[in-house]
Amino acid sequence: MPAVPLTVEGASVLHQMFRLKWAAWKAATSQEREEAIAEATSTLEEMEGRESAVFSLLGHKGDLLFLHLRRSFEELNEAELRLARLKLSDYLEPTTSYVSVVELGLYDSSLRLYGGLLERGLRPGSPEWEKEVEVTLEQHRKAMAPRLYPSIPEGRYVCFYPMDRKRGETVNWYTVPMAERRRMMHEHGEVGRKYAGQVKQIISGSIGLDDWEWGVDLFGDDPVSFKKVIYEMRFDEASALYALFGPFYVGIRLQAKGLGGFLASTDVSNHLIQK
Amino acid sequence: MPAVPLTVEGASVLHQMFRLKWAAWKAATSQEREEAIAEATSTLEEMEGRESAVFSLLGHKGDLLFLHLRRSFEELNEAELRLARLKLSDYLEPTTSYVSVVELGLYDSSLRLYGGLLERGLRPGSPEWEKEVEVTLEQHRKAMAPRLYPSIPEGRYVCFYPMDRKRGETVNWYTVPMAERRRMMHEHGEVGRKYAGQVKQIISGSIGLDDWEWGVDLFGDDPVSFKKVIYEMRFDEASALYALFGPFYVGIRLQAKGLGGFLASTDVSNHLIQK
Amino acid sequence: MPAVPLTVEGASVLHQMFRLKWAAWKAATSQEREEAIAEATSTLEEMEGRESAVFSLLGHKGDLLFLHLRRSFEELNEAELRLARLKLSDYLEPTTSYVSVVELGLYDSSLRLYGGLLERGLRPGSPEWEKEVEVTLEQHRKAMAPRLYPSIPEGRYVCFYPMDRKRGETVNWYTVPMAERRRMMHEHGEVGRKYAGQVKQIISGSIGLDDWEWGVDLFGDDPVSFKKVIYEMRFDEASALYALFGPFYVGIRLQAKGLGGFLASTDVSNHLIQK
Amino acid sequence: MPAVPLTVEGASVLHQMFRLKWAAWKAATSQEREEAIAEATSTLEEMEGRESAVFSLLGHKGDLLFLHLRRSFEELNEAELRLARLKLSDYLEPTTSYVSVVELGLYDSSLRLYGGLLERGLRPGSPEWEKEVEVTLEQHRKAMAPRLYPSIPEGRYVCFYPMDRKRGETVNWYTVPMAERRRMMHEHGEVGRKYAGQVKQIISGSIGLDDWEWGVDLFGDDPVSFKKVIYEMRFDEASALYALFGPFYVGIRLQAKGLGGFLASTDVSNHLIQK
Amino acid sequence: MPAVPLTVEGASVLHQMFRLKWAAWKAATSQEREEAIAEATSTLEEMEGRESAVFSLLGHKGDLLFLHLRRSFEELNEAELRLARLKLSDYLEPTTSYVSVVELGLYDSSLRLYGGLLERGLRPGSPEWEKEVEVTLEQHRKAMAPRLYPSIPEGRYVCFYPMDRKRGETVNWYTVPMAERRRMMHEHGEVGRKYAGQVKQIISGSIGLDDWEWGVDLFGDDPVSFKKVIYEMRFDEASALYALFGPFYVGIRLQAKGLGGFLASTDVSNHLIQK
Repeated sequence: MPAVPLTVEGASVLHQMFRLKWAAWKAATSQEREEAIAEATSTLEEMEGRESAVFSLLGHKGDLLFLHLRRSFEELNEAELRLARLKLSDYLEPTTSYVSVVELGLYDSSLRLYGGLLERGLRPGSPEWEKEVEVTLEQHRKAMAPRLYPSIPEGRYVCFYPMDRKRGETVNWYTVPMAERRRMMHEHGEVGRKYAGQVKQIISGSIGLDDWEWGVDLFGDDPVSFKKVIYEMRFDEASALYALFGPFYVGIRLQAKGLGGFLASTDVSNHLIQK
Repeated sequence: MPAVPLTVEGASVLHQMFRLKWAAWKAATSQEREEAIAEATSTLEEMEGRESAVFSLLGHKGDLLFLHLRRSFEELNEAELRLARLKLSDYLEPTTSYVSVVELGLYDSSLRLYGGLLERGLRPGSPEWEKEVEVTLEQHRKAMAPRLYPSIPEGRYVCFYPMDRKRGETVNWYTVPMAERRRMMHEHGEVGRKYAGQVKQIISGSIGLDDWEWGVDLFGDDPVSFKKVIYEMRFDEASALYALFGPFYVGIRLQAKGLGGFLASTDVSNHLIQK
Repeated sequence: MPAVPLTVEGASVLHQMFRLKWAAWKAATSQEREEAIAEATSTLEEMEGRESAVFSLLGHKGDLLFLHLRRSFEELNEAELRLARLKLSDYLEPTTSYVSVVELGLYDSSLRLYGGLLERGLRPGSPEWEKEVEVTLEQHRKAMAPRLYPSIPEGRYVCFYPMDRKRGETVNWYTVPMAERRRMMHEHGEVGRKYAGQVKQIISGSIGLDDWEWGVDLFGDDPVSFKKVIYEMRFDEASALYALFGPFYVGIRLQAKGLGGFLASTDVSNHLIQK
Repeated sequence: MPAVPLTVEGASVLHQMFRLKWAAWKAATSQEREEAIAEATSTLEEMEGRESAVFSLLGHKGDLLFLHLRRSFEELNEAELRLARLKLSDYLEPTTSYVSVVELGLYDSSLRLYGGLLERGLRPGSPEWEKEVEVTLEQHRKAMAPRLYPSIPEGRYVCFYPMDRKRGETVNWYTVPMAERRRMMHEHGEVGRKYAGQVKQIISGSIGLDDWEWGVDLFGDDPVSFKKVIYEMRFDEASALYALFGPFYVGIRLQAKGLGGFLASTDVSNHLIQK
Repeated sequence: MPAVPLTVEGASVLHQMFRLKWAAWKAATSQEREEAIAEATSTLEEMEGRESAVFSLLGHKGDLLFLHLRRSFEELNEAELRLARLKLSDYLEPTTSYVSVVELGLYDSSLRLYGGLLERGLRPGSPEWEKEVEVTLEQHRKAMAPRLYPSIPEGRYVCFYPMDRKRGETVNWYTVPMAERRRMMHEHGEVGRKYAGQVKQIISGSIGLDDWEWGVDLFGDDPVSFKKVIYEMRFDEASALYALFGPFYVGIRLQAKGLGGFLASTDVSNHLIQK
């Protein structure tokens, strides 16, 4: 039985975190500021139509988070370069970023498929095996297309963090039999489902693309719900034993058309997304 | 028996650490400095009425610590943006920050409730179970409101640090049975109570919100009492085995109205809070 | 039986990651920009003939990656210095780099040779032994010259990461018998061969030259194939137990002649390598 | 038997490490430099009378180390602010710092006292217990006052480093019985006493105050003696098993009156402390 | 039997790594550059006579490495300050550094001496014992003077890295009996001797002086020989189990008189040391 669960991949994802150089921004003339805002607003409004979103981050890790979902890495790179060329970007300092692709893991399907193929006497890695795998993957890609190329959920808040599965000297996810991993992922998923009404998630894979194995985006209307779901999950076996967490980012959604107000006034609550 | 202790959440909390750009500050004209001080003082005085406080930090990690407790993340973000727009902030460089929410853990209540519900034959996670849990949480939120939305204690000094519970390969807080964890938290709390007359604390949770699981603020009139209580706690089982500590920050409280003196003179002791 | 597998070494390799100072670049006059582009394009075109390549990186780790393969460290240093002297480099900020030499590991050949020499009664490390080793190495260097001094593969995307073999307290690659390591490297190689049509790789060694033991470059026409091959490998014994991964970089190939367009326009896809 | 050894605390301690901005310093006019030197010299001369000292650090971690011992954190903060307001500080860039209080650990006394109180039937933590503890502490504070508020030793060189006691999964200082810890600290102390003629030390505690548990300052007339004593200690049980070391800083003492020469000439040896 | 092997110490050693601010350097007038080069060349030529050397580093960790061997820390500090005062240093940015003293470990001699003294009934640490130890050390200092105060070897390339001996929870160098450590160091040394014709080394100790326990400098005419010797050593017991490696730096030797060419032209190979 092969150890590797099948996955299907969808949208290319880029998170960009920036700090605003407030002193330089305030030192600009009001004409410079207005031009920068007008240009940025118009670019971002267009980008919102192509699955980009802007968030006001809390704390020193950044003031703005841009999240882009695209059809290819070229389109991600183009989004990145368009932002870099904005006048506004002269006042932005990149603090960090994250590159990934939307991913759906197929533990159940993998076990069923592998079991069936083995019963039929196929050898893992043989041309027939690989062909059957590709057929199954293609079916899932089609059936799951809406989840592979999702719209950015409308929640008022975002929580983003990258994570790994541990490969410790005795506790090592990658040496656990697949059926065990499936069982743990099920248990893990059940906690998620409990919060389905409060928190929407997008899971993206980043092995080979960035420094952690996965990225997790949560969207919801109450930031405490992020804490609650992640805390509850921390006690399930998959997380308690095997999860290694990177930095956490939490932000409040801005509309492109609210960016100017955000940059100009102190009353941030006026510029947040209204459902 | 579910493994997750109930918690209730209150005020949203932001710690902001800044280094003062002394060279630029000294190079400013006295009019610029006076205007910056007047504006900052008036803003901070108003903020003090909404649970913000300012501290002079010791060492290179920052010169000023702003602590904000608010009703929502929008209000936190607004506080952050108001500071960013101050003239004074042109002379401030963010060094770090921390985002969290005031949290009270309910080990005793959780064990009692879960035990009772199980006796009544309820299934964890079932609608009835969740309803009973929500009723209990709501009772605690009401009863504990003053502790969930606290005033910032008046101690002359502050000590802030974030911390995790360890998830090692053999020593893992999240796999310890809840009754064991409760026992350890009790022992831990007893040390705290011994110092209750000297040290006030605010515990905030930051899972999903920042890079550590909890933030701890201690307030007191003798900085050595911070060392004493944390050292004594380090020998209790919850800390000795399971605590992982982040960086420590220690500061001396300033009044908003003392900020100008702090920025202008060398005699800091004149500008500290007087009880 | 000596524990050290034979290796043969080839081209000297330097990866250079740079962030573009967009604000300064945009603030330059169009004449300055044109001169910088013309000079850089001509230098890079010449360098492309000597096994250098340029990539547009995704994310904040850098905007441009220069990859150089050369005959010696002096030539690498010269390439580095030539770039540093370009007008364009006034707008580039180094973020990181990696120094290594192309390496081919010879587990099979080592075991065969060592076994034969031991049978002949030679003592490891004796002059006769070392002479036979050198003869074998020289044979491999000749036979493998094209792989030791490779051309940079033409894939549209690059993935670069450094890695170590773990030396944990109980899981330690360097104490595993050589035959065991060979077995694991074979298994590891089989996964690689499965993706041979999609992903080309260059392995370079960096013990004594940079902070990790090896550098891995993957080239391919689909960035998801990087994720797939590395994910699948993560379950083989050599990786699951013994691999320690550094940061990952992913980029899109630029042609030297496309650099100007890349720097001037927002439509990056026009400037990518066309096969 | 309580696990926590008694400690008594004395002077508040601040280490400040700065890098000199040589280019800016050299670009200043000679009048600016002379004024900055005159002001800094006079301030530091006055501070030397209040237990401050200046050292020329080796290597890139800093050019100057200021060490302050004071009666309170307010006085430390004032020292820090006075330095920040010096003209010279426009040419100084803080690299790091350390906040602590002089601490003497009382293992022997703790065991004797706890044993006696238990024999008398007192309960740890009871009011009677705490009262007896306070009486003992007060006796030690008086008897040890000269060591709690020490003068800065006169050695030509300083070595500073912070350290922790390990809390590993199996090797954990905080779970070792107190009598065992006392035995190890004795053995540790014996090594120290062997070097008493060559190296003077000040131990300060920083739990709750900075990122490590203790700070160690060594003073002596031969920097190799620092290496010798720390190397020898590394083999005693307390260090071999339980010590975790932070960064090390080594410097050469300057007199305030030698600061001008240090900043102006290349012959540093003229400006070092002469015994 | 004491656990601490005797060591003798020699020259004080400082490694300084700098990045060249190429943009500022290129923006300087040719007169400024010529003056800076002339001054630096003359200073470095004089320093070469006192055991300093300059290397062109590969990669982003630095452009230039200055290595100084001196008779005292004051002389090291003076060398550092002389460089800081050069006009050239306005274009140099320190990236890192390393402080140490040349050290020779005396495992064989220690075991012989300790064994003999114990046979004579002397007590470790007693005055007689310490006197005999000092006599032995003094003998070694004299006999080994040329190795304690070495000239910088002439190899075309340098490799520098710091390292520790591990103190893990189960694998801990400092708890291994001395005879075992001697055996491992012998095995380790044999690998080194195999490469004696290709690689010269200087070992320096830095416990108490910098952040790692030892610094290693290798000099040779083929950078691949650094990789080969360190890779082969990685399989010996002392390294496989007990070595913890810091960052690696690799450079090409420059002559002081070649510095101008290095800074002015792109053909670095002209300016390298010629044997």
